[in-house]
Amino acid sequence: VTRVAAVQLAPVVGDLDGNVARATTALKQVLAQGADVVVLPELTTSGYVFETAEEARAAAIRPDDQRFAEWAALLATRPGAVLVVGFAEEADDALYNSSAIVTADGVQAVYRKVHLWDREKLFFRPGDARPPVVETTHGRIGTMICFDLEFPEWTRIVALAGADLLAAPTNWPLGPRPNDERVAEVQIAIATARMNHMAIAFADRSGTERGVDWSEGTGIVGADGWLRDTAGSGTGSASADHDLLESRNKGQTELVDLFGDRRPDLYRGLEAPGP
Amino acid sequence: VTRVAAVQLAPVVGDLDGNVARATTALKQVLAQGADVVVLPELTTSGYVFETAEEARAAAIRPDDQRFAEWAALLATRPGAVLVVGFAEEADDALYNSSAIVTADGVQAVYRKVHLWDREKLFFRPGDARPPVVETTHGRIGTMICFDLEFPEWTRIVALAGADLLAAPTNWPLGPRPNDERVAEVQIAIATARMNHMAIAFADRSGTERGVDWSEGTGIVGADGWLRDTAGSGTGSASADHDLLESRNKGQTELVDLFGDRRPDLYRGLEAPGP
Repeated sequence: VTRVAAVQLAPVVGDLDGNVARATTALKQVLAQGADVVVLPELTTSGYVFETAEEARAAAIRPDDQRFAEWAALLATRPGAVLVVGFAEEADDALYNSSAIVTADGVQAVYRKVHLWDREKLFFRPGDARPPVVETTHGRIGTMICFDLEFPEWTRIVALAGADLLAAPTNWPLGPRPNDERVAEVQIAIATARMNHMAIAFADRSGTERGVDWSEGTGIVGADGWLRDTAGSGTGSASADHDLLESRNKGQTELVDLFGDRRPDLYRGLEAPGP
Repeated sequence: VTRVAAVQLAPVVGDLDGNVARATTALKQVLAQGADVVVLPELTTSGYVFETAEEARAAAIRPDDQRFAEWAALLATRPGAVLVVGFAEEADDALYNSSAIVTADGVQAVYRKVHLWDREKLFFRPGDARPPVVETTHGRIGTMICFDLEFPEWTRIVALAGADLLAAPTNWPLGPRPNDERVAEVQIAIATARMNHMAIAFADRSGTERGVDWSEGTGIVGADGWLRDTAGSGTGSASADHDLLESRNKGQTELVDLFGDRRPDLYRGLEAPGP
């Protein structure tokens, strides 16, 4: 069984060292509580509400940064443990809003957010590659970031690529909603898990940053599409035990298969015409 | 403003005349209450839990059946009114699980369910055409049926085709769910509306048929992704007033557009390779 933890943090914009320290403390804590797969929010290391590109760049790091090696060393204290964490990525050509999949052996994959939301477009370049799916001790783990989850093509692609668990760093700004309704983005994650029979863990932020309130929507949904746990309000974490290999059974009955029943021969117009 | 009504009925398997009478009564009632667009359940005319193909065929009708003309005559009592209704369709070659879009001028389009669920495969042939989107007085109305809604490619395609309202006849068998959770299929409809900024009305069944309990999930979701009304338990209807043209505004902020932010250049693998 795999214990998945999604951690709700309150990073401070621009405070790289402080944010790394907060993430390290949280990582140690959930590992001590038996977490096997740990998800931290989008832009955990940098904060989110930038005013200038320079500010974003000052808080950006590269995947070969020593901080990832230090997290990998922490992961080595629990056999097979995996960390998925969002960070502002510095590259030679641009900044990216990225997510790293890290094991005791170091960074296994980096995903660059493709569907940038709102003012992120002013600071980051969109990625141009599909979400990675990494084979781990605990099954196949895919990652994408926040607004990416609202593009059903994108979540379907990672499910078809074989992800057992989609680990999604997010920063969901708080929007209006009717009383007694869940955060809208959480409802999308719930539906996505069910349509693809794929577990999803999403780590959101708490608090307020430069006037932006966060949704505190952190949670974990099973492959059956039911919400297993949330982090509630404030910093904290959601935790749930899964057999992630259950995600591979796309059959609902002897005659129903969520993937086999697709009709790709009729799905024209979703993709751009090929070269 | 457009008043959309989704009607929760309890058809009786094989009782074609009785089912048509029940549908007619419900249609009259919601039209009298000011409904402009009326959605009735999947297989309204035939019932659902067939034991043999012969039984299904005996309750099947053709789109040129006089019953559709009678419904069209009823629609003529309210200018611009539209009916979307599920029926077992008899054709020369096979039976289809179909949905008709009807106006005072008669049947405007027939959709044949593409994603057949479970034992439907024993009685019906799957359709091989995309969902129609019909221009009406109240905006562009698309239709698909029940399990079709669980294929995000399919709902995306009808949204990209310009549907302002997706009218979905359903028969959702009752499944287990945690306390206080909505019907899973309703959660999918909610997420689908939000991801596509498209209103969705779904008409489900009530009661029990040959041991199958129905979910009574009838409801209406706005383009903003919030549930506007449900039919509750038993027969009845959900009703909500919409400006359906609001569905056409896919922008969330000056820098966010749900369709413009798609990356079709990266969505490879959803479609079967072309000819």
